Amino acid sequence: MNALVIDGRAVAAGVRARVAREVATLPTPPGLATVLIGDDPASAIYVRNKRRQCAEAGMRDLHRHLPGEITQEAAAAVVDELASDPQVTGILLQLPLPPHLDAAALIERIPPEKDVDGLTERSTGRLALGRPGLRPCTPEGVMVLLDEIGAVLEGAHTVVVGRSNLVGKPMAQLLLQRNATVTVCHSRTRDLAAVCRTADVLVVAAGVPRLIGEDAVKPGAIVLDVGIHRTENGLCGDVDTDTVREIAGVVTPVPGGVGPMTIAMLLQNTLTAARENPIT
Amino acid sequence: MNALVIDGRAVAAGVRARVAREVATLPTPPGLATVLIGDDPASAIYVRNKRRQCAEAGMRDLHRHLPGEITQEAAAAVVDELASDPQVTGILLQLPLPPHLDAAALIERIPPEKDVDGLTERSTGRLALGRPGLRPCTPEGVMVLLDEIGAVLEGAHTVVVGRSNLVGKPMAQLLLQRNATVTVCHSRTRDLAAVCRTADVLVVAAGVPRLIGEDAVKPGAIVLDVGIHRTENGLCGDVDTDTVREIAGVVTPVPGGVGPMTIAMLLQNTLTAARENPIT
Repeated sequence: MNALVIDGRAVAAGVRARVAREVATLPTPPGLATVLIGDDPASAIYVRNKRRQCAEAGMRDLHRHLPGEITQEAAAAVVDELASDPQVTGILLQLPLPPHLDAAALIERIPPEKDVDGLTERSTGRLALGRPGLRPCTPEGVMVLLDEIGAVLEGAHTVVVGRSNLVGKPMAQLLLQRNATVTVCHSRTRDLAAVCRTADVLVVAAGVPRLIGEDAVKPGAIVLDVGIHRTENGLCGDVDTDTVREIAGVVTPVPGGVGPMTIAMLLQNTLTAARENPIT
Repeated sequence: MNALVIDGRAVAAGVRARVAREVATLPTPPGLATVLIGDDPASAIYVRNKRRQCAEAGMRDLHRHLPGEITQEAAAAVVDELASDPQVTGILLQLPLPPHLDAAALIERIPPEKDVDGLTERSTGRLALGRPGLRPCTPEGVMVLLDEIGAVLEGAHTVVVGRSNLVGKPMAQLLLQRNATVTVCHSRTRDLAAVCRTADVLVVAAGVPRLIGEDAVKPGAIVLDVGIHRTENGLCGDVDTDTVREIAGVVTPVPGGVGPMTIAMLLQNTLTAARENPIT
């Protein structure tokens, strides 16, 4: 069998175009405040991409670049200012922060209504309790890809590899809300391949290059690869796609699979946040 | 094989005695405000038991009984008063509430520091994010029973049947934090018995009498039964214990298994809350 390869770039472009159309119908455009602290080159690239796509979708780019040596108190004051600014409908604190800062404490200052990364305790609690709220972007993007291919989740056995707060744990909650049976695996899981072989839908967010091979995939399974790693032979994911695609029914490529969905869902969240709390 | 039957009453008594000893060492006893709205007979019995055990552990019983026809605003005002009262170190809103009240909105008024039921969005988020906080009592009680029998959770395959906000979902989080592989099943799960048979530790909180029979249990498994149902032939749980105990390694009885742990853990949470935010 040769698996269907999902074109995440195309799906993400579709989401961005839809968001842009909907933004154009709003009386006031949403305003996204990306906050970059310091000069980490990778973070700078991520933030630049977010700002560019935000602007392309017709949203206001309310970026803040803060010096790397900023104190916790000064950073908190900036977040508080953005939190109370009615022009700012979404706040994104680019991680990681310089090590002298308490990232969790800063994130908690973001009101859940503006928490477009879905990382505060309240957003996390709302997701776990099944209440409306803003969800972390990457797992939300995986759900859009699953819907794009018409995956039937109700009653399906889904396995999530990885239990990060950013991907694995919210992923499991989103699948559970769609009435899937959900198994969460991680580095301590015994016989990972055997557990993964039970999956109709396998989401891999372990952060280990090519962790999942053909021995870990049920024939016909849908395999979504959240990992991205730079190797001597180019980029690869957490899934050994070259072998897995011979067995799986659907796979996502790396790059061009789940990756492009993250910023697309950030735009979607920013739109959602602005709709729920419009600028008055 | 004949399973070990955990004596939940004895374990709960041990927890209560330990809490009482620790309360006695505090400069000021913790104060638990149970809030009962209306006259539901079952709720009245639960609250009476909580108050009695609270008093027996040396804590202050700061009970409030509110009329069933109270308005949302008036109930909110009572919760706010308890929230700001430094003598009150824990607040428990007995559920269910009369249908005209918005229970979730009232619960959200409880500060996470006093949320001894662990049901607010912030407590739920703290659990999901792996941060310190107060946890729902029943799943916490299951964890104590597992520790009591020396269950090895790291790497174990655990299956939780049921996905309620009160038990199933927080249960899964607690098991995950202990490095178990965790599967969450529910009413839409296909071939529930087959999934349950993969479990080294099986926690059943489905609310369906005798849902889990011997065909759903791996030989030697640890089976914890959170259900309790009144039938013509007396009380029973979600597990058909008479047949399952021939196969399982460990079972909890109903009554006298998980049930008694809930109030014991409420006392533990009230102690923890008072320690973290002592009366000044």
